[in-house]
Amino acid sequence: MAGYTDIDRLAISTIRLLAVDQVSKANSGHPGAPLGLAPAAHVIWKQMKFNPKSPEWINRDRFVLSNGHAVALLYSLLHLFGYPLSVEDLKQFRQVGSRTPGHPEADLDGIDVTTGPLGQGICNAVGLAIAQANFAATYNKPGFELSNNYTYVFLGDGCLQEGVSSEASSLAGHLQLGNLIAIYDDNRITIDGDTKVSFDEDVRKRYEAYGWEVLSVENGNEDLDAIAHALEQAKKSKDKPTLIKLTTMIGYGSLEAGSHAVHGAPLKADDVKQLKTSLGFTADEAFVVPQEVYDLYNKSTIQPGAQAETEWNALFERYIESHPKEGAELKRRLAGELPENWVSKLPVYNPSDSAIASRKLSEIVLQSIYNELPELIGGSADLTPSNLTRWNEAVDFQPPQSGLGDYTGRYIRYGVREHGMGAIINGISAFGANYKPFGATFLNFVSYAAGAVRLAALSGHPVIWVATHDSIGLGEDGPTHQPVETLTHLRALPNMQVWRPADGNEVSAAYKVALESKHTPAVLALSRQNLPQLEGSSIEKASKGGYILKDIQNPDISIISTGSEVSIAVEAAKLLAEKNVKVRVVSLPDFHTFAQQPKDYQMSVLPDGVPILSFEVLSTSGWAKYAHQSFGLDTFGASGKGPDVYKHFGFTVEGVVDKAEKTIAFYKGKQVISPLNKAF
Amino acid sequence: MAGYTDIDRLAISTIRLLAVDQVSKANSGHPGAPLGLAPAAHVIWKQMKFNPKSPEWINRDRFVLSNGHAVALLYSLLHLFGYPLSVEDLKQFRQVGSRTPGHPEADLDGIDVTTGPLGQGICNAVGLAIAQANFAATYNKPGFELSNNYTYVFLGDGCLQEGVSSEASSLAGHLQLGNLIAIYDDNRITIDGDTKVSFDEDVRKRYEAYGWEVLSVENGNEDLDAIAHALEQAKKSKDKPTLIKLTTMIGYGSLEAGSHAVHGAPLKADDVKQLKTSLGFTADEAFVVPQEVYDLYNKSTIQPGAQAETEWNALFERYIESHPKEGAELKRRLAGELPENWVSKLPVYNPSDSAIASRKLSEIVLQSIYNELPELIGGSADLTPSNLTRWNEAVDFQPPQSGLGDYTGRYIRYGVREHGMGAIINGISAFGANYKPFGATFLNFVSYAAGAVRLAALSGHPVIWVATHDSIGLGEDGPTHQPVETLTHLRALPNMQVWRPADGNEVSAAYKVALESKHTPAVLALSRQNLPQLEGSSIEKASKGGYILKDIQNPDISIISTGSEVSIAVEAAKLLAEKNVKVRVVSLPDFHTFAQQPKDYQMSVLPDGVPILSFEVLSTSGWAKYAHQSFGLDTFGASGKGPDVYKHFGFTVEGVVDKAEKTIAFYKGKQVISPLNKAF
Repeated sequence: MAGYTDIDRLAISTIRLLAVDQVSKANSGHPGAPLGLAPAAHVIWKQMKFNPKSPEWINRDRFVLSNGHAVALLYSLLHLFGYPLSVEDLKQFRQVGSRTPGHPEADLDGIDVTTGPLGQGICNAVGLAIAQANFAATYNKPGFELSNNYTYVFLGDGCLQEGVSSEASSLAGHLQLGNLIAIYDDNRITIDGDTKVSFDEDVRKRYEAYGWEVLSVENGNEDLDAIAHALEQAKKSKDKPTLIKLTTMIGYGSLEAGSHAVHGAPLKADDVKQLKTSLGFTADEAFVVPQEVYDLYNKSTIQPGAQAETEWNALFERYIESHPKEGAELKRRLAGELPENWVSKLPVYNPSDSAIASRKLSEIVLQSIYNELPELIGGSADLTPSNLTRWNEAVDFQPPQSGLGDYTGRYIRYGVREHGMGAIINGISAFGANYKPFGATFLNFVSYAAGAVRLAALSGHPVIWVATHDSIGLGEDGPTHQPVETLTHLRALPNMQVWRPADGNEVSAAYKVALESKHTPAVLALSRQNLPQLEGSSIEKASKGGYILKDIQNPDISIISTGSEVSIAVEAAKLLAEKNVKVRVVSLPDFHTFAQQPKDYQMSVLPDGVPILSFEVLSTSGWAKYAHQSFGLDTFGASGKGPDVYKHFGFTVEGVVDKAEKTIAFYKGKQVISPLNKAF
Repeated sequence: MAGYTDIDRLAISTIRLLAVDQVSKANSGHPGAPLGLAPAAHVIWKQMKFNPKSPEWINRDRFVLSNGHAVALLYSLLHLFGYPLSVEDLKQFRQVGSRTPGHPEADLDGIDVTTGPLGQGICNAVGLAIAQANFAATYNKPGFELSNNYTYVFLGDGCLQEGVSSEASSLAGHLQLGNLIAIYDDNRITIDGDTKVSFDEDVRKRYEAYGWEVLSVENGNEDLDAIAHALEQAKKSKDKPTLIKLTTMIGYGSLEAGSHAVHGAPLKADDVKQLKTSLGFTADEAFVVPQEVYDLYNKSTIQPGAQAETEWNALFERYIESHPKEGAELKRRLAGELPENWVSKLPVYNPSDSAIASRKLSEIVLQSIYNELPELIGGSADLTPSNLTRWNEAVDFQPPQSGLGDYTGRYIRYGVREHGMGAIINGISAFGANYKPFGATFLNFVSYAAGAVRLAALSGHPVIWVATHDSIGLGEDGPTHQPVETLTHLRALPNMQVWRPADGNEVSAAYKVALESKHTPAVLALSRQNLPQLEGSSIEKASKGGYILKDIQNPDISIISTGSEVSIAVEAAKLLAEKNVKVRVVSLPDFHTFAQQPKDYQMSVLPDGVPILSFEVLSTSGWAKYAHQSFGLDTFGASGKGPDVYKHFGFTVEGVVDKAEKTIAFYKGKQVISPLNKAF
């Protein structure tokens, strides 16, 4: 036991009041959870291993606030534990342009994942724990325990109600992640009032069913010893993640403690005063930090953390000497760099090569690069034989004692858990060490994970989604499985690459750009059906996101297309050529990357004066960014053989010819302005 | 016990082989689950209460195939149990234009919900069970048990792994839905192989934790008595839903039984032959149904079902006499009609009325109509005080013994379970009786439920999403909560209304059109912040989806806008008028409804010759359908006071004026074609 004294209680009061003061000053925010959770935060952070001066140190303990609305608690901790976040920053809580927005955002030192959307953080924590287990199994050597950090996560009732947490928690139990310690703030209050209006499941039993160690702390408001004891127990649980059910009172100390009134609104002025008085602070002073509290944390945590990092750095230097290969690799990874020449491993194709489904082309890429990129880790949401994401030599990431693989494995069996997978890969990416995680499913079911995909884009986690069966071309499974709106949705996300490559070179380009990306996630939309290798494609050209695949002087029309439709567009261009219609064919595998190119390059591809017809067998919505007229699918699909379904909707060479002729006729004599040419 | 004999085994063999033959003929599909589940299907369907000649009979038992890939089983059942689905239809399995697509689709008689995307069906079943409980509590009277049907659902490992099933299952346990019987096909195989690669949780314990009755059948392949016994037990469980864990062997009887080879691919020809031989059928005959099997089901189920409906109809006639008020209401509801004059209850506003947030306007609508529309049922995913979805007199839908409400209650506390909520309201809608279910959350978190929202559109369930906090205008919660891509996503869904009303009349119009819709779901995007009542709006005009709010002769520009931005556009128009710039302001509360209007009406709103600027503080993607130039938010938002955030991004009256002037200047001297005017 740590022997907690008055100074601990003073520190906890300071955390509580800093949180309350932030919310009061902003007149917006959530004071209730910070008041209840401050004691657990104090006990946990005090013993955590990190160096606030070096927030990227790879062996730091990770902390995730899954109940992200309690962010005022986190800002208080970051300030008190030496991160570069000032009292002035706390005073700017929830103001435009401040460093202290309304929910935790990953670009702030000390915050690894952006949280707030409930249920995400606990899954990110599972990802962080997976990464740690893989990292340790890969690089630790006798006498060199380079990695042994824990991942701590706070979560509330809301997180537990969200299905995404069930997905990741079930997987974490299966994976026996003993490095994961979750603290469940059992405060029995949500926005609708008492949790018993909708949530009276037995959480202990549910987590035991997942294979977790479950511990309880009955008085989380005050019993520091019990919290510390549970923490010790959790650390002893080496082959199970631990859930500590911490019973707290929301808004502890407030006059409205235990009610939903303290959840999401500032305390009343009088309440703040009585709270400060009862905690021994001056009633009308705000943002007060006793020097003893700074001193306490400096001594308990900041100095030891800095020391630990210094020792780790020395250890790593020795490691590099005694394990030069791993050491060099690790050094590269910690610098966030890909290996030199890895791009040369990417397959290149010629038009004479056989037609191959882009999901298969993706498999060939993975097979070609897995050995170059030890940071590549991922798998499928139970669609491995359909997504084709497993390289031949892959070892599954599994608990060693399972006999199914081990923690050095880089192939993850996520189960049928798309949303959990999405949040987990965000967590793996957030671990650092240049991890390049991927998840795979059918494109249509990326939508199940929309909440996590959005956070990847918002937080800048460069994760990769291998999304196969990317259109009605998947055929018989029918409209329940055929994406229509999906690319429109994903392309409307800021900071999101959405690749739909047309052939082998474009698949290689998609992987190249996605893997080189440091802050932008990517979805790779891949076909079930075979696609021919195109004349005119190359990795270099496709890496621009869009390019002229087949040019002609003074075109009558440009047909701009993606993925499986590009080769149909090329055939249509040939047929039109026989009718003396001059067609430029543009391949646009990724809107986002194309939009990053210089304006004059973009205009050279899509100049004024040439009508542009887009062709993609998905929703036409969003295509007007690059086309005057769009040929696509604005209804749901149909069940049938893939080619029959294409024909059913008129997505044939003849169909494209018809639409092209109509487009040319429509624009004849009209002024044609490039869609890139805008008023602002 | 039912005393099963050889004829039962023959019937089960027939089901098995019809399923196998469908998959073999199509050379596509999933034979494994039907082979394993045929015995349970036989036992359950034999005792189910329904009339295939009257598939909409309100007191029929419901059956949901949550593992929708086993659809060949369902088609076999529908055929054998007298639904209008012929052997010829079975032979067209998975062909374009057939009545037997690759997954169950709700437009076929006997199929209530479209399934296939895993996890949805079990949640739809929870919705069906909620509806039944509410319906029975509302209309049953002493001596008149009009409603007492059960909802049966088959689900597999995949459904259990999906988080959405956790959400709805936890809620179903809380709600004590004794009318729900779920059969879990525990076959230990998923596409990636043995379930133990990712799924070794204790399902029994997990469902007990949710408050379910959990039963087991050890030999689901053959032990009909055990299945029947479990069913009896389940029906005795009046205040708990029941999960029957049915251990089966996937592909039972196939040479590859128990392996994932039989999951998603046809059996090999030799395997089919040996299977038929071993079941006593002719090896090279397909689609064989012994007459005894037809006769069996006719006697066991079809005739009793028809008889039961006849009796029910007579009961209902007597009910109408003895309970004329409820009888008339019920008759109306069963006809799928809304009450006369309900629209007159919708609030109407004048420009002199005060500014009100559209979430609050929505609350006023609900308060005004709840008593007119007993079919209105819904609630919030734990955001009631923010979504403002609860009318003052609401009774919560809760188990009567909870003391929190009762089953006549029409306000549902979904908990923080957006995806489950979405699938549940689809199920409530599918129950019939004109139920008009709604679910509420922040607009940004509708994305969590994307899988269910898509199925509402695909299946044509006219559910309503009350989606408040619809933009950066929500302010301090910041970018994790501020939708950007959401409306683009939702508008790209076929058959989906996406309302973003600008004032009180438009909110009323949105509810009017959404509630009158018979086959189209609606999302209502509503503001947190106050909005003024607009000059020129009306329920009638807004019900067209788009209209000229403020007209002028020979406009220099049209500004087309939605929701909270319309009043800013109106102010900008005034400022521009002072500069002698003539502005037409168009309000476009719903793209989908506007697109249903006659083309000449649409063209009258957005004619050739006038440049159109769209203004909406969300992604501009998709707006080119109606505008030449778009002013919107193509990055993530920011945390701060709502007005400050608007200002931060330039979304001010002055900002709109600037963009309008730039648009006019850009188009000066250029030919301006209406975006509605297309080549095809």
